[in-house]
Amino acid sequence: MSANSYLDILHSIDPVANEDLKAYAPFIVDGIKVGLLEEKVCQKILEYGHLVDNQLLVTSNEEGQAYVTFSASVTDSNNRTKILKTLTEAWREAAEFNTLAGWRGELFAIHGDPNDPRGFFFELERSASPIFGIGTYGSHLNGLVRTENKLPKVWIGQRAASKQTWPNFLDNTVGGGISSGCSPKEIIIKESMEEAGIPSELATNAVLTGTVSYMIAALGLEQSTLFVYDLYLPDDFQPVPQDGEVGAYYLYSFEEIEQLLLDGKFMPDAAIVIIDLFIRFGYLTPETNPHYQLLVYGIHRRLEVPPMSLARSS
Amino acid sequence: MSANSYLDILHSIDPVANEDLKAYAPFIVDGIKVGLLEEKVCQKILEYGHLVDNQLLVTSNEEGQAYVTFSASVTDSNNRTKILKTLTEAWREAAEFNTLAGWRGELFAIHGDPNDPRGFFFELERSASPIFGIGTYGSHLNGLVRTENKLPKVWIGQRAASKQTWPNFLDNTVGGGISSGCSPKEIIIKESMEEAGIPSELATNAVLTGTVSYMIAALGLEQSTLFVYDLYLPDDFQPVPQDGEVGAYYLYSFEEIEQLLLDGKFMPDAAIVIIDLFIRFGYLTPETNPHYQLLVYGIHRRLEVPPMSLARSS
Repeated sequence: MSANSYLDILHSIDPVANEDLKAYAPFIVDGIKVGLLEEKVCQKILEYGHLVDNQLLVTSNEEGQAYVTFSASVTDSNNRTKILKTLTEAWREAAEFNTLAGWRGELFAIHGDPNDPRGFFFELERSASPIFGIGTYGSHLNGLVRTENKLPKVWIGQRAASKQTWPNFLDNTVGGGISSGCSPKEIIIKESMEEAGIPSELATNAVLTGTVSYMIAALGLEQSTLFVYDLYLPDDFQPVPQDGEVGAYYLYSFEEIEQLLLDGKFMPDAAIVIIDLFIRFGYLTPETNPHYQLLVYGIHRRLEVPPMSLARSS
Repeated sequence: MSANSYLDILHSIDPVANEDLKAYAPFIVDGIKVGLLEEKVCQKILEYGHLVDNQLLVTSNEEGQAYVTFSASVTDSNNRTKILKTLTEAWREAAEFNTLAGWRGELFAIHGDPNDPRGFFFELERSASPIFGIGTYGSHLNGLVRTENKLPKVWIGQRAASKQTWPNFLDNTVGGGISSGCSPKEIIIKESMEEAGIPSELATNAVLTGTVSYMIAALGLEQSTLFVYDLYLPDDFQPVPQDGEVGAYYLYSFEEIEQLLLDGKFMPDAAIVIIDLFIRFGYLTPETNPHYQLLVYGIHRRLEVPPMSLARSS
């Protein structure tokens, strides 16, 4: 029962089979697939194309598959960013896509362009990312407290009742999207203070343990990579909600978290970070869970976008 | 330079692109793909088929793609095991495949049959596994020693000069294949004593941290999953070679291990476990390595075989 439930959680979060991806139109820039768009998005690009001199094209390849690309004259990241800004602002005004109701005024970078000095193909308003199915990046942190047992306790945040997305759901200790030009570690230090009041002297000890990556088909296609940090906090330290994003923090054992997870109390991205935590600490094992390897695969899905590039190849 | 070298190591180990897999004939049992065979293996099945009343067939599907399967009358795992035993023993006698020179007399289980009481499709001599491209499983252990720094030191084994495969190469502290009917944890406890003299009271504290999975095209196709354990050893404990498999043990820092890794001193599967260790401990990061995400993906490749099944789904 509980063994199957883990897989149910993963499938409920990550229900897009590779076969299903054929229904999406690739977003191709300089020959590289940077996103995946639903048919209805292609229609809106055509409908609003006059606003940008039709410099964002819907066309098709030799096999007749539709794809989206910039016209050949649009070769630099600034111009690409401007075109998408014009379109998404018009769509927001006209209430074309639900996700734009959550407009953030925050730019995500589309990584991987070897010809751009910053390595970006373009930048895009955060709430528009599912419309274009681009790769998005975040940093999440597990705040841990050592116990006399082998397993630590974990500080779990409960999202504020006022949050637009997933109000009152349980979340990791800290989490934030990686804005254009920031590194995963910078984000975790910044968000640790802003969300939980963890001072940067403490937060800088957070250890990156890897990534989880997954697709979610909701308000478009999300292709998400989260950089997962562990941070051991002193016994007498208590995270305190700072910015209204988190309602409260609770210190739970792995057993308590497992029950809350299986009861569906966690928001999707936090649930995946918790499954990763359970795997890394040997709480989930192949001896007790028949779907162990499917869970390991599932939280490490290879996404259909270029990975984040920060350090430059020498 | 060193950043690229990590990717070089991974590619030198795992050079089989998904596109390349089309050249292999799937091994289909009860409608499930359990392995991948080179064309020359299909030829040998035909050539030696009379020894097993042609009950292992090379046939083709509606699209004309060749595949290998058992004849419809061979429905249970014991009979399937016998047929493969007869063929592989004949091939060994005739020196048909190089890998059979390393005959182990040890059976690997082909997992995933929901109709078999043990969940096995069949069992197969370990050294024959690359011929059929089945999924193989092992348990590896990092023996760690806490230091005053954030990073522990790691006990690294050097393989004996007399080993048939990879003599003198560096290896993880402990490693072993998972024989049919054994669990990953049982193997790690058994091999810890047999290889390194780590008593079971200590070895039982080993914590499973996840798996690494990869393909190697060498003497056939290996589709390997390794269960990776970490074990903190007391300062005054020293692993000692027991069974002639390991020549010596050295206690190295992460920096020392990195240099040896980039110098090509590690055998392939151990190198992948070391990359995983570096990722999990935050020694490898996206801020310093431009291929970080490709390395995370690369060590978690989704293999073309059913995953190991131990616990039964309820």
